[in-house]
Amino acid sequence: MKGDLSMSDFTEQLKVIVGEQYVLTEQEDLLTYGQDWSKLYQADPLIVVRPASTEEVAAVVKLCAQNSIAVVPSGGRTGLSGGAVATNKELVLSLERINQISHFNAVDRTVTCGAGVITEQLQNFATEQNLYYPVDFASSGSSQIGGNIATNAGGIKVLRYGLTRDWVTGLTVVTATGEIMRLNHGLIKNATGYDLRHLFIGSEGTLGIITEAIMRLTTPPKEPSVMLLAVSELANVSNILEYFQSKIDLMAFEFFSQAALDKVLEHRQLKAPFEAASEYYVLIEFETVSEATTDEALMAFEYAAENGWLDDGLISQSNQQAEELWQYREGISESISHYPPYKNDIAVTPSKVGEFLTAVDDFVKSHYPEFETIWFGHIGDGNLHLNILKPAAMALEQFKQTCAEANPDIFKILASFNGSISAEHGVGLLKRDYLNFSRSESEIRLMRSIKQSLDPKNLLNPGKLI
Amino acid sequence: MKGDLSMSDFTEQLKVIVGEQYVLTEQEDLLTYGQDWSKLYQADPLIVVRPASTEEVAAVVKLCAQNSIAVVPSGGRTGLSGGAVATNKELVLSLERINQISHFNAVDRTVTCGAGVITEQLQNFATEQNLYYPVDFASSGSSQIGGNIATNAGGIKVLRYGLTRDWVTGLTVVTATGEIMRLNHGLIKNATGYDLRHLFIGSEGTLGIITEAIMRLTTPPKEPSVMLLAVSELANVSNILEYFQSKIDLMAFEFFSQAALDKVLEHRQLKAPFEAASEYYVLIEFETVSEATTDEALMAFEYAAENGWLDDGLISQSNQQAEELWQYREGISESISHYPPYKNDIAVTPSKVGEFLTAVDDFVKSHYPEFETIWFGHIGDGNLHLNILKPAAMALEQFKQTCAEANPDIFKILASFNGSISAEHGVGLLKRDYLNFSRSESEIRLMRSIKQSLDPKNLLNPGKLI
Repeated sequence: MKGDLSMSDFTEQLKVIVGEQYVLTEQEDLLTYGQDWSKLYQADPLIVVRPASTEEVAAVVKLCAQNSIAVVPSGGRTGLSGGAVATNKELVLSLERINQISHFNAVDRTVTCGAGVITEQLQNFATEQNLYYPVDFASSGSSQIGGNIATNAGGIKVLRYGLTRDWVTGLTVVTATGEIMRLNHGLIKNATGYDLRHLFIGSEGTLGIITEAIMRLTTPPKEPSVMLLAVSELANVSNILEYFQSKIDLMAFEFFSQAALDKVLEHRQLKAPFEAASEYYVLIEFETVSEATTDEALMAFEYAAENGWLDDGLISQSNQQAEELWQYREGISESISHYPPYKNDIAVTPSKVGEFLTAVDDFVKSHYPEFETIWFGHIGDGNLHLNILKPAAMALEQFKQTCAEANPDIFKILASFNGSISAEHGVGLLKRDYLNFSRSESEIRLMRSIKQSLDPKNLLNPGKLI
Repeated sequence: MKGDLSMSDFTEQLKVIVGEQYVLTEQEDLLTYGQDWSKLYQADPLIVVRPASTEEVAAVVKLCAQNSIAVVPSGGRTGLSGGAVATNKELVLSLERINQISHFNAVDRTVTCGAGVITEQLQNFATEQNLYYPVDFASSGSSQIGGNIATNAGGIKVLRYGLTRDWVTGLTVVTATGEIMRLNHGLIKNATGYDLRHLFIGSEGTLGIITEAIMRLTTPPKEPSVMLLAVSELANVSNILEYFQSKIDLMAFEFFSQAALDKVLEHRQLKAPFEAASEYYVLIEFETVSEATTDEALMAFEYAAENGWLDDGLISQSNQQAEELWQYREGISESISHYPPYKNDIAVTPSKVGEFLTAVDDFVKSHYPEFETIWFGHIGDGNLHLNILKPAAMALEQFKQTCAEANPDIFKILASFNGSISAEHGVGLLKRDYLNFSRSESEIRLMRSIKQSLDPKNLLNPGKLI
């Protein structure tokens, strides 16, 4: 405690604000709430507080500001970059009790969500209203809207629906001084100066605590159709993307390598989709708007085949078949989790994916010939998940260290492509020291200056991001 | 000149940077470049400079910073809020020579535009590539991309395609110190900290000078169909919006009153669209994806008719008919320009449009019974253009003064609906003093603090916005 208050007085005051049972001090709770899915850092929070409203959050933050206690906001803690871990005696402010869905408006197609609303809860709510919340990813069953916004979460349908940012029409934020700001009020058009909403989105809790958001919903898509294409040459993936998107609206354009497919087939005991193996696979999902759409897709397939862009292909004839084809892509992460893999979530512009992937492959092969590389990702968005598998013979610690040493070289390649060192997982602690590979010195200086003016005492999620 | 340089030395140095013929000092040029379409302020710039590249802009801004000369960035000057006027001996920095379209990438569907590229030039370029730039508005033939971004321009297809913000994947900005920042590099996914791009978008030249942008393009829509609906009750406009958008993807959902229609009919010598007059009209545009879409639209029409939501309706059978129906909406501005009208570009959430419009109408009728009010707008986005016509018997100056006196009352009503005092025209000089009706004290304080950290000497478009 840097202020005048003793720890026990501080705890008492917290209990007055949120109620006794919502202030947690047991070691088990500290470890649970101080950690995220990255599991890379030692949790060591001071205390855990679970407020029930924006007003309670504001009161807690004010008390922390008075006593110079740092605050780590905590959502579903599904992050993979250590953005929500508390390693340094911070107060963990869990938003999970602010989980109400309210103020649904059918004309505006908006709904107010507490920061603690689970992504899937919002998706289900939308479905009940015959509407659709399109941001979706593997952790939708656990991740929370507040965290999604704080990291501007993406996922598998960005190509069609954009990122979380694109669905936020209003934002309630508690600032470092405990002030409550209500931004944009659900408006579609509002040209009244700096859009602070967009500044808080993706700021990983370092500028303010998101407590509530007005989210947009949309018309549900019609049944999906899925095509799986086998491709030998990386360069043809770009050709396929360009041609298909000129013919049909794509929902997803996913990619994986034969090595990735092999892992899934083994892990899930599946039959290979094609008789012969290819180097790469592209999975295309599109909305089956009408028979004409399917015809267009089949014609695009034929065109691609005639041009020698692909070796083989499959198209789903039912929802079940569509799901079966998705398995080859969705099963990858799980199938390699036991190695464990070194993971890197990176992006370039879609047209540069082939060249970039080859450059990294060449680098890994020549410097780390013992490493197996598994590639997959949302490459319609230029987003690749690079996974390097630990060789069985190598000790985990040595593997981690070797990978950490490779990081700057991989990021250097990425920087030469003007790429992003974090496509959709944020910066957190994991990539903070590499930020300069994706952001210029003057950008980082400006980010620091914004941080300084919003949080001069550096109490909001300190040490994360910058 | 506040620095050590004399005016003639300063001018000489500018000439060295941009070339002699691109430094303008003639009174006629000063008046032209110092003014925008608002025509409300007396132009009085120091000098006009027309650089040809980002590097030249940076050099000019650096020289201005050294000499404490304020800079007003200047695009197509089609603004209606005095955001680009120079009234106080500023240097006007015209971006019009930075008008190259380059680096088109068919896979990424992106293209680099100089700030001086005319909106229509980008639209035409997209069409030549079998693609589409969807942001469109009345001034597309004159407005420039840099200005569109600086004001986050909207227009008639926001409902379907969003605002200018949604199409910017990269931004080159010159800061107040003359540094060049290249933001986001065209990436779709980039979770590496504060998205400074979104901070500059809509900042009206007060935080940095936009010199170049990477713009996204999309698939062109199929032929448009247009429906014109006659509606008696304002409340039914919401019902129509909700029902139609649940059935078909809307491109535009426009609105005008009978009074507005009367002006167009008279001005363009057109026949009334329906035999009987109604209170209000709704114009719906949608993409004719297939016959099924038209069927859905017709069924929605029948459903609306059965529910008594509308009095009558028309649907276009050809492109030409679609354009003819649009005339009733697009001709309004021109038909009332000679009064002249007091204009106000405001927004609420779409569901509140009816209630808000009624509240303003009631206020105007009771306080200013001599005023005629003309309503129209993009109400699918909640965006209304309020126009009050000058009574023939009232002198222009008195009319202007009376309207200025009414402003705070109208904005007070707007604030009670959590609305925006500027939907898509920006703040500029015109609405600066009313900002507090749409933004809270703490928001304005934060905006000032951001301005202070990016432009501590207040040299970038000073006096505008905040």
